[in-house]
Formats: sequence, structure tokens, C-alpha cells
Amino acid sequence: MQRLQDLAAIGATPEGGVCRLALTDADRDARAQLMAWMREAGLTVQVDAIGNLFGTRAGTASADGADAAPVMTGSHIDSVATGGRYDGSYGVIAGLEVLRWMDAHGIRTRRPITLAAFTNEEGVRWQPDMMGSLVHAGDLPLQQALDARDRDGLRLGDELRRIGADGALPVGTIRPSAYVELHIEQGPRLEAEGVTIGAVQDLQGIAWREVTIEGQSNHAGTTPLDLRRDAGLAAARLTVWLHALAERTGGGMVATVGQLALHPGLVNVVPGRATLTVDLRHTDAAVLDSALAELDAWLQALAAGHGLRIGCRALADSPPVRFDARLVELIEDRARARGLSVCRMTSGAGHDAQMIARIAPAAMIFVPSAAGLSHNPREHTAPADLAHGARVLADVLRTLADEG
Amino acid sequence: MQRLQDLAAIGATPEGGVCRLALTDADRDARAQLMAWMREAGLTVQVDAIGNLFGTRAGTASADGADAAPVMTGSHIDSVATGGRYDGSYGVIAGLEVLRWMDAHGIRTRRPITLAAFTNEEGVRWQPDMMGSLVHAGDLPLQQALDARDRDGLRLGDELRRIGADGALPVGTIRPSAYVELHIEQGPRLEAEGVTIGAVQDLQGIAWREVTIEGQSNHAGTTPLDLRRDAGLAAARLTVWLHALAERTGGGMVATVGQLALHPGLVNVVPGRATLTVDLRHTDAAVLDSALAELDAWLQALAAGHGLRIGCRALADSPPVRFDARLVELIEDRARARGLSVCRMTSGAGHDAQMIARIAPAAMIFVPSAAGLSHNPREHTAPADLAHGARVLADVLRTLADEG
Repeated sequence: MQRLQDLAAIGATPEGGVCRLALTDADRDARAQLMAWMREAGLTVQVDAIGNLFGTRAGTASADGADAAPVMTGSHIDSVATGGRYDGSYGVIAGLEVLRWMDAHGIRTRRPITLAAFTNEEGVRWQPDMMGSLVHAGDLPLQQALDARDRDGLRLGDELRRIGADGALPVGTIRPSAYVELHIEQGPRLEAEGVTIGAVQDLQGIAWREVTIEGQSNHAGTTPLDLRRDAGLAAARLTVWLHALAERTGGGMVATVGQLALHPGLVNVVPGRATLTVDLRHTDAAVLDSALAELDAWLQALAAGHGLRIGCRALADSPPVRFDARLVELIEDRARARGLSVCRMTSGAGHDAQMIARIAPAAMIFVPSAAGLSHNPREHTAPADLAHGARVLADVLRTLADEG
Repeated sequence: MQRLQDLAAIGATPEGGVCRLALTDADRDARAQLMAWMREAGLTVQVDAIGNLFGTRAGTASADGADAAPVMTGSHIDSVATGGRYDGSYGVIAGLEVLRWMDAHGIRTRRPITLAAFTNEEGVRWQPDMMGSLVHAGDLPLQQALDARDRDGLRLGDELRRIGADGALPVGTIRPSAYVELHIEQGPRLEAEGVTIGAVQDLQGIAWREVTIEGQSNHAGTTPLDLRRDAGLAAARLTVWLHALAERTGGGMVATVGQLALHPGLVNVVPGRATLTVDLRHTDAAVLDSALAELDAWLQALAAGHGLRIGCRALADSPPVRFDARLVELIEDRARARGLSVCRMTSGAGHDAQMIARIAPAAMIFVPSAAGLSHNPREHTAPADLAHGARVLADVLRTLADEG
């Protein structure tokens, strides 16, 4: 708890939250603090070329043995602009405490255990998000990541060098035997159901679309309803329809219109143009694809029926991820062995684990988020729940690290 | 046509439109041009303390007789930022041509005829709109108008003095015996029905509301549909409902949501707050009031049903205006006498005539707007229609100015 507090002080906001955007001075200071703690805990610290931080506790197996790949845990320490204290940081600090606890109790493991803090998970300044883990998994070329530019035109690689986070380790060097990430849920389900531990078995697929509706800007007083081509009204119909689509589809589908701009945006002018975003998520790729096809057909009918021109552009497509079944069972088992309530669940948010899942068996452990709030200064998890999560992580890591 | 072209050159935009916001340098130049033309036409030019411009052609009756109040015509020469060439300017230039035509044909009238160009009709920089005519009618104190500030904090009175438009004439001095305003329709009806002249019998009442919806900002991936308090979805439901209300009410009711802002406005965050404007219009005050009451009740139900806090603030309330029945008949009669098609109609837009109607019998003459476009660089009326409107205005003014 003290370390979480100390880390939250770096980039603290007046509202009690954290603003620690990737590769800012605050991120630099947080990295320095984390590396100091890692070294104090006797870990071997390595930084790779995209700034991913690794701290490794040695195992008892021969270091060059083919079956001595480390078990990895971790998360990220960057935040969004209106972030809380636990998103990302919790998984990193809890991992550190697990390794310190093993030392304190003289516990040795066959495999090494590596604690990772991945660069730019939030993707606020540079897209895509989960960038460090994506590069680590080999699915985003290092050079492309380094060349990404933020809104001010700043190159990621230059900022990385500026804060001294450009390490010597080639990206993707540390290939784990398994990866387990501990994280706050960032949703309301565990709290609502009174369950302490979530064994995360999959991640929703995410489709982002930008819909542009062009009608005709007209005088709000002199244009009869039947002669209007109201882009704002069409955007409203789309928003209502999309919600109904998600409800009708079920199976945890969620749909959100988070951004909407009307032009010219005057009280007495019928909007001639509306631009809005659609965020659509489901765990089943086929269901998601079918919903997107329905959206396209519905937009075409809307355009034809109301004299509008409608464009729909993909902003992002992230397929659903299924975590490793044996790891999910192991998490459930270890939670029950501690007498904790546990349920299988789906993550609605993206996490580094989904990238590492491409190169190793992976799964996640969730603990409750008060009121489901995250990316919010009021983000909170009860200290007892934070401790429960860390204990389950310890038990899972110990089991995995002793496997042959 | 030449004068309309010359006036449109002052504040001309690359798109072929006009940007001549009230009391800018462009407005100053247009005023100077208009006053020069007035003087060339032998009119007595006066400017009042709010910058309203008057050019009077003398009548034959004794100047101090109680029944020798002038007949007034006119409009405004300020524009919106994306204005066209005819809104306002047409009524002023046509009035000038009518007086020049009377001179050319040696026509004398018993009453004087005053051509007016009212200050700040558009209300872009300073609210309320139709400000000059409202001050002239005595319903907005001069000092309050002068103290109005624009977005940059500039005081109207200071800008008025800066461009030398602060005249010596006390406001409200010229009290007309009747007021007739010639204007483009700014709507599609005349063109759609193939009618040349609109005899405007009334103006819709206008209610502007700002609705603020507060829900809960949440993660778009992790928050199940049934646990959301989505302010953006509520705003969309309101927009769709409002359109249905206007359709159901009928009688020319129009409803528009022209402005809408979502917070925080991110693709993957459920909007926690939505602010939108409602523009609701109808010619019958009782129908308008009843629709507003329905809106309030519906908003309360929406708030209660979805866990939202909803506020509704009046931005403007302008009651319906009924023009003088005899003047409307006179316009119809003179149009028919010229062999022109004519219909009675309602104005959906606000005009200086509605303010002057408070102190004198008033009515308006409309000519067709191509595609109903106005406040748009593509605003257009066929030259033949412009001429038809001016001829009807001439005949109406002549009749009114010869009355006892």
C-alpha cells in the first residue's frame, strides 16, 4: 500500500488521481522509482529498445536450459490524463511484493520470474495502445513504434531518448513460459455480485467506427420537417438503434457513441453534418462481424430513406482474445484454496496480457473496482481486495514457476 | 441588381457569400455606401443612438401634422458569418429603388416614406437579435443594448462609437403609421409551390431551451448496458422524441436540435454529460406552451427512468406575432393586381418587422429562396422575383403613404 501511494504521488492531480502520460517527466520519475525498488529487491533490471522494463528474480534451473524460460507477470505504470492510482500500477507493485514475499520466506522457484512494466499501455499520446507489449510480441515493428508522433508532432523515439528510457535489450528477447497479469476490473461486475476474484477467460473484440453523416444545413424556422435532411437527427436515430442492437444481440455485447459533433452547431440551424464514433464489443468474432454487417446495412437504409450521404470508416479492429484455459483454471483453483469467491469473466478493456497471449499462455486476475469506476480520480479498490489479489497472484506464480 | 452586387462586395467571402457582422469595419463601409446612396436619392438621413439608419423622402402633408407620420420600410444590412447577398440587404436596396422610382416618375405621396436599416438584426456578436428594431420599439432599454458584450468582451456601445455609427437621433423618434418589410423567404415553400409572392400574416413563436443531462461517465468496454447512465443516449432519445412530437403536433410545428456536446467526448467512454439545445416553433402560443409542458414532463420521466439528472433552461422565448390583417390583404391585393401568384404564409424566421409590429401596423412581403437556402453563400433569388417583390412593395407603400 505504501509503494502504491508513493507511486501515485508521481504525477498526482489535485483531485486525488494520477496524470502520468507515457514518456513524460512523470513517467520518467515513476520508472526511476520502480527500477530502484526492483534493484532493492535484488532483481536483475533490463530495459528494452521500446522502454519496456523487466526485473528478473533468478530461478534454480540452469540459466541456459531450454525449459528455464521465466514466468512473467506485470502490467504498466503509465496512466490516462484523468487516471486513478490502481490501473496498471497495481499489477506491477503487487508483482514486486510477491517477489519480495518469496525472498522473505526463502521460497525458491525452478524458473526465473520476470516482473514487466510495458511502455505506453494507455495509448493516449501515441497510438496504438498496448504498444510496448505489442512490440514485445513482435506484432508491431520497433521502428514503426519509435516513429509514432503525438498531437504536438513529437516522435515517440525522441521522447523515449529524452527521458533515458531507450534500453539496450533487443525487443522480444524475454519469451516467457507463461504470463499472468493482475489488474483492477475497471467495471462494476465483481462488486455488484460480491465476488472477490475474477478469473479472466477472455477479452471482448473491439470495433471502432467513425460515421460521417452529410445532410443539408438549413434554417431551423423556415424549413418544414418533411423537407429537412437533418444529419443530427440521423445521428440520434443511429445512437438509439445501436443501443437496441446491442440489447437485442445480448451475450454481453456493448455499444457506445462516445464522440459526436454537429455542424454548424448553432441553436437555430438544422445540422448539415454529424460525425460520431461507434464502439462495439463482443467476445465472439462472428457475432461482432454480423453486428457490423447489420450496422452497414442499416446505415445504407438510413441514407437512402432520408436523402443523406453516410460514410463509415474503421478506426480500430481488435479481435476477441481467449486466454489459456489451464491458466484460468489454475487461478480459480488457487483463489478457492485461499477461501476466496471467484468467477470466470470477460474483460471489456484492453490489457497487455492480450498481446503477450500471442507468444505465451496467458491469463488475468481481476479484483473489484468500487462503483466500476476507472480512468477516473475516484478509481478505488479496498486494501483487503488488493491483498487478496496479490495472494492469488503469488500462489499462481509459484505453481507456474515450479513447473518443468 | 447593381447596388445589391456593390453591397455584397463589402465583406465578400471567397465562396461568393457575405460576412458582414454588425459593427465591424465591413458593416461601417456598407453603412457609408448606403448613406451615400440615400443622399444621392435626396433622402434626409438620420442615425439614432443605437445606429439605426433612416433615410426619409418628404411627403406633401404638413410636416408637423399629427397624421403625417411616415410609412416605413426597410430591413438590415448586417449578416451572419456565412451569409448570402440577399438576407436583409434585399429589403433595404429594394426600398431605396422604390423611392428612386417614385422620383423618376414624379410620384408624390401625402405621407413621408422612411427607409430603415436596423442595427444588429442577426445577433451574432451581441444578443438579442433584432436588437436595433427592438430598441426602436422601446422594448429594450438603449443603455442595456449599448452595454452588451460580445465573446471577446467588446462592448456594443464602444464598437458603435469606433465605427462612427452612434447617431444623435434619440431612439424611437420616428414612429411610423405603417411598416412593410420585403425579404427573401429563407425557406423552400414559395419555390416548392411555384408562388412568386408571400403575404406574411404571422411569425412563429420561438422557444429555445438548453437541456443538460448528467449521467455517469464510464468505460465503454467494462460497463454492461443495464448499469449505464448514458447521457449521450438520453440526448439521442430526446432528439428523436422531439422530432416525433413536432410531427404529431403538426400545424407547421418545427423542432430542431442544432447544438450538442458530449463529455468527455472520447470514443471509448460512455458520455457522462450531454448539453444540447432545443429550438421549438409554432404560430399558436397555446400549442407551443403545451408542447413545452410535454417536453418538461418527458424529460422528468427520462431522468427518473434512467438515473439521470436533467436540467432545462430557457435561452429565449419569443411569442408568436400576428401581422396587421389589413396590410396582409393589401399585399395580396397589390400582388394580384400585378398578375402575380400570391399566398398567405407564416415566417419561420425572426425579422425586424416583428419588433416594429409592437408600435405600428406591420406586415411582410416574401419572395422565393432557391432551394430554401439562407445564411449560406449559395442563398439565391432569381432577379425576376427580386423585381416582382420590389414592384409589390412600391404599390403597397404608395397606397399606404397616400392614406389620411
